[in-house]
Amino acid sequence: MALFSITLENLQQLFVKELRDLYDAETQITDALPKMTKAAHHSELKNALQEHLEVTKNQISRLDRIFQMLDEKPTGETCKGMKGLLKEGDEIASADGDPSTIDAGIITAAQRVEHYEMAGYGTVRTYAELLGQHEMARLLQETLDEEKEADETLSDIASTVNVQSKAA
Amino acid sequence: MALFSITLENLQQLFVKELRDLYDAETQITDALPKMTKAAHHSELKNALQEHLEVTKNQISRLDRIFQMLDEKPTGETCKGMKGLLKEGDEIASADGDPSTIDAGIITAAQRVEHYEMAGYGTVRTYAELLGQHEMARLLQETLDEEKEADETLSDIASTVNVQSKAA
Repeated sequence: MALFSITLENLQQLFVKELRDLYDAETQITDALPKMTKAAHHSELKNALQEHLEVTKNQISRLDRIFQMLDEKPTGETCKGMKGLLKEGDEIASADGDPSTIDAGIITAAQRVEHYEMAGYGTVRTYAELLGQHEMARLLQETLDEEKEADETLSDIASTVNVQSKAA
Repeated sequence: MALFSITLENLQQLFVKELRDLYDAETQITDALPKMTKAAHHSELKNALQEHLEVTKNQISRLDRIFQMLDEKPTGETCKGMKGLLKEGDEIASADGDPSTIDAGIITAAQRVEHYEMAGYGTVRTYAELLGQHEMARLLQETLDEEKEADETLSDIASTVNVQSKAA
């Protein structure tokens, strides 16, 4: 049972809450990606994670613009979901063993992160549309498209990495 | 930094680890769904969550069959990702305020759970195929299809709930 219960009055309030959750999630990802990149062995995976760090920073800038438009602060929420997901990622990034299997595990953890974001951005994009915030919806759709693309890139890399892991 | 690092030697080992992660995730979901169901206001949402409890129990049975086939125990992993996601769900389920906005928040939390499972089951289904475990791949695909369906059902319900929340 939660010790302090929150109050949700309307969609606008939930929209801001969810945006703050995503802002914190992206910040956590920015902190976690360098370790995952360092732990990865395949150059394709290293490059994809490195590139995703830049993409993530740009996604944070988009959220900053949205918070400016809303005249709201981006801070105030801790994304507990992302905390748990990144703990799993950290466990894999600290693992010993076969390089391709560790890479397969990193991909798995990263795809869970992508899926969290796909669910989150899909929701806030829909809220923005409903609230008549079309420019915000456009920005959020851009990020959503990037997350889907990142997930597909990881699946492509997995098709090589998994086969090498199987042969280990 | 992880205090105890794990060892990953090959895809078979990662496959079992990921299956155990999903087993624990499903068990956590089974424990969390009754509170979310009770907290939901719209009957359509209540019914969908109630029905998903039964679906989840069946998914656990499928995993039990897979562990029997593998001659492995299902326990031994704590799904930290799902722990975080369900903490978010619990916060919303304990919220005060407008019923439709709380329901919109419950849907958001539940869709993040579905996306976690979609990423997780997509991965183990692919591993099973690669490992030549076609019956396991078939069972995991069945669950994956159910998770996608549950996500779509939640999106359908959201289209009504969100509009009511906007009007709150």
